[in-house]
Amino acid sequence: MSFSNVAIIGLGLQGGSIGLAVQAYLPGVRTTGYDADPVTRIRARERGLVHEVCETATDAVKTCDLVIFCVPPSAMGAAAREAAPALPKDALVSDVGSCKQSIAASLAEALPGYTIIPAHPVAGTEHSGPDAGFASLFRNRWCIITPPEPTDLLKLSALVAFWETLGANVEIMDAEHHDLVLAVTSHLPHLIAYTIVGTASDLENVTESEVIKYSAGGFRDFTRIAASDPTMWRDVFLANREAVLTMLQRFTEDLTALQRAIRVGDDKTLFDHFTRTRAIRRSIIEEGQDDERPDFGRSDHEA
Amino acid sequence: MSFSNVAIIGLGLQGGSIGLAVQAYLPGVRTTGYDADPVTRIRARERGLVHEVCETATDAVKTCDLVIFCVPPSAMGAAAREAAPALPKDALVSDVGSCKQSIAASLAEALPGYTIIPAHPVAGTEHSGPDAGFASLFRNRWCIITPPEPTDLLKLSALVAFWETLGANVEIMDAEHHDLVLAVTSHLPHLIAYTIVGTASDLENVTESEVIKYSAGGFRDFTRIAASDPTMWRDVFLANREAVLTMLQRFTEDLTALQRAIRVGDDKTLFDHFTRTRAIRRSIIEEGQDDERPDFGRSDHEA
Repeated sequence: MSFSNVAIIGLGLQGGSIGLAVQAYLPGVRTTGYDADPVTRIRARERGLVHEVCETATDAVKTCDLVIFCVPPSAMGAAAREAAPALPKDALVSDVGSCKQSIAASLAEALPGYTIIPAHPVAGTEHSGPDAGFASLFRNRWCIITPPEPTDLLKLSALVAFWETLGANVEIMDAEHHDLVLAVTSHLPHLIAYTIVGTASDLENVTESEVIKYSAGGFRDFTRIAASDPTMWRDVFLANREAVLTMLQRFTEDLTALQRAIRVGDDKTLFDHFTRTRAIRRSIIEEGQDDERPDFGRSDHEA
Repeated sequence: MSFSNVAIIGLGLQGGSIGLAVQAYLPGVRTTGYDADPVTRIRARERGLVHEVCETATDAVKTCDLVIFCVPPSAMGAAAREAAPALPKDALVSDVGSCKQSIAASLAEALPGYTIIPAHPVAGTEHSGPDAGFASLFRNRWCIITPPEPTDLLKLSALVAFWETLGANVEIMDAEHHDLVLAVTSHLPHLIAYTIVGTASDLENVTESEVIKYSAGGFRDFTRIAASDPTMWRDVFLANREAVLTMLQRFTEDLTALQRAIRVGDDKTLFDHFTRTRAIRRSIIEEGQDDERPDFGRSDHEA
């Protein structure tokens, strides 16, 4: 089986990119979409993010065989309840959220009797909203699918094929492990970035203007991540609370150890730590998960 | 006055970039260079980082009117002592180190009687060594000069003009304030990045392979910074110990406050914090200190 009518609820960075990617890579598939924000719907129509932008969630889903919820974690349940009255009983329900256990629970509660297979494309930028999406967002990125037990294997296969056609590499994982892995590869980095950008803004002996001017020393990288959508990230930290707090505890212990090494002048501990962190960068580049050019190939290095 | 013979001691990312930039933007100026590592000297000759790569520090400096030490902070004193016997008495002594108080002290001790005006171009990439340099590294970046009191104003003016010709914007600052500003815009971000990459590598329930695969969720950005030169960064943290520990204390307090907000489910505190960190990103882009394209314009988003 494969999908012929895909409904996308939420037309921001993720939903918009899926809409554009389906039109680019699955030209026979019809796409409908809805966003709770009327301004976003207007912009989505202007950009042609989907074939038809509907004025209600029920209109958007009424003929679909796959619906993908692309709203912040805390809005998943309400979005699903809004679409429920018109959602065909055999449609597959999926999403793109960054935390899977809590979203799977919200969707199951809102849509009893439906087949729900959550997914998470590990792809994005710091931009959000209907202007942020682009068709190639998922190319060479991983999409983690977290099917419940038992699951509908035909629908699962179709979802895997769907994401692969959009350019993603698919991995199957249980939701609990997903939440732990993403706590370290995504949630903790965002929390740290948000923290350090806040710390730098609040100093009394260094001005914000100085922080901005001299940001090329490393700080500017953190500001990119800390420019991500505040609503989504508030939700992610609350929805994946336990795993995030566990990872944060580990991070704090490690930071305290390095802090002590600096205080006591333990040059060997510092050097050894800074040496072993290089290898992981090389692996990420070798696996095609980052740009190998210096500074990510930033344009300010062009001659 | 202006310089006609520039000696560069240390031919890595910074020294190599200065050599190439002088040849590109100051074609009448002669450059000589030296590096303690014979392999680096060979590679520096092959790349033509300077007009003449010398076999000793004394040979490199004997006719210079400006010498720039481009070695890690802890090596500054030894490098200056090695060059001292042949260094012309009226040559200006400068450097490119990331911490200014301790380096100014090392250079003054090694070169009594010389005019020393330390400088710090806030520019770099995660790469190091003789292959890492390029002529445009300093373009549209800030170079902070920290002249001692009193200083030779003619030589200071010439150093300002030198860096401006290489493409940098110059700022004058006292060394103590420099060390505080850079502790937050550069040193703390590096320490945090080194820490989180270490934390992620050490988990027992998430494999390193998973960390690498799903790094596009935010983690990969930190690995770039944590791939920086371990020797240099060990030295920086020890040389700017007090300021780094002060900033780290502030960061830890702020992180603890966000950790508490997550634990108690304080969504308002999280949302407010994540909203105000967006403004600083916009300012950095407006001031030309970062690439405005999503994800720094990484190549994996190209269609």
